[in-house]
Amino acid sequence: MPLWQIYHPSNTYTPEDKQNFARDITAYYARVGLPEFYAVALFRELPADSFYVGGKPATASVRITIDHLARQLDDPEMRKRMTRSLDILMAPYTHDRGLYLEFNINEVASDTWMIAGLFPPPIGSDIEQVWAEENKPLPY
Amino acid sequence: MPLWQIYHPSNTYTPEDKQNFARDITAYYARVGLPEFYAVALFRELPADSFYVGGKPATASVRITIDHLARQLDDPEMRKRMTRSLDILMAPYTHDRGLYLEFNINEVASDTWMIAGLFPPPIGSDIEQVWAEENKPLPY
Amino acid sequence: MPLWQIYHPSNTYTPEDKQNFARDITAYYARVGLPEFYAVALFRELPADSFYVGGKPATASVRITIDHLARQLDDPEMRKRMTRSLDILMAPYTHDRGLYLEFNINEVASDTWMIAGLFPPPIGSDIEQVWAEENKPLPY
Repeated sequence: MPLWQIYHPSNTYTPEDKQNFARDITAYYARVGLPEFYAVALFRELPADSFYVGGKPATASVRITIDHLARQLDDPEMRKRMTRSLDILMAPYTHDRGLYLEFNINEVASDTWMIAGLFPPPIGSDIEQVWAEENKPLPY
Repeated sequence: MPLWQIYHPSNTYTPEDKQNFARDITAYYARVGLPEFYAVALFRELPADSFYVGGKPATASVRITIDHLARQLDDPEMRKRMTRSLDILMAPYTHDRGLYLEFNINEVASDTWMIAGLFPPPIGSDIEQVWAEENKPLPY
Repeated sequence: MPLWQIYHPSNTYTPEDKQNFARDITAYYARVGLPEFYAVALFRELPADSFYVGGKPATASVRITIDHLARQLDDPEMRKRMTRSLDILMAPYTHDRGLYLEFNINEVASDTWMIAGLFPPPIGSDIEQVWAEENKPLPY
């Protein structure tokens, strides 16, 4: 977690685009202290007859869902700011290419989440910082 | 948003079926005033060895997840009625063809949702009505 | 519901693996009394250039999302125990094979969920037991 699912028509992204987009997503969370390996990005290519926006085949559209841990941000203005900052992160892979983008952030429970057989440490804890520095999950 | 993800075995739907199903989904929300382009439908074809119901390969089953904005409907009876009306909408593409259908509606936050770089206007607002009439997101 | 979505790189699982994994998932819920047909497992194969963990292509990783009905378990310790028990269930298909596993359980509303045109009976009810014994949804 975070988990990004990026739905796009065939031929939207090159392998290099996907690699760069995944790298930018990871860097965003790393800047606020999350371990890099927390960031997961799945690119889901859809054939032309399987992706509709407003009942019409979506040829130049991208739909992204992002799962974040619940209760990390309560303040309404901070939530807006975070959402806007993710929109800016996505711009080079969407807006700037003339692609129509819709995205939303889902909030999911943190206490029913495991990585490599471990419950991740509390957000902002010293142990999380060790996980971030080592970039791997370690028993604690 | 709404976001429909329709999981089905290979060879369940023709391209025309998908187009019609996506059109019906869009019309449902348009009737209650939502902009048409809010309705996104993704058809996700699964090979025979990748879709199981009760531990058995699902050959004539459809599983649908629907993401709606949270807190739009609070009244329990209204929620049931809305759910039933969606079941009726799906019938021509599922029940009426002898396909087994399971679906559920997830509720997701509305304040961490963006379209084309904009926060969508409040549900039921005048600006939303303009978006619906123009059928596109406009700065406001 | 429960709905399991298992994201894995190509060539991670044989058809037999998937069949066995789906069977184990189903057996887990059947043991606590749920009808077998409630358990749905979708295997989602991703090409090497479409699955990233920490910005790097994920070659030996599995990401699983599990949707459960909300409010089934409130006690924090019970929630942890349940999560751990699912981790153990997954071990033969992940940890024991040297695959890196991240998973999380999402909680979704129960009153906007339908199977075969019916609202499933309350969890733990007599009617649910009938559904479990007959292993099919029956009008009630």
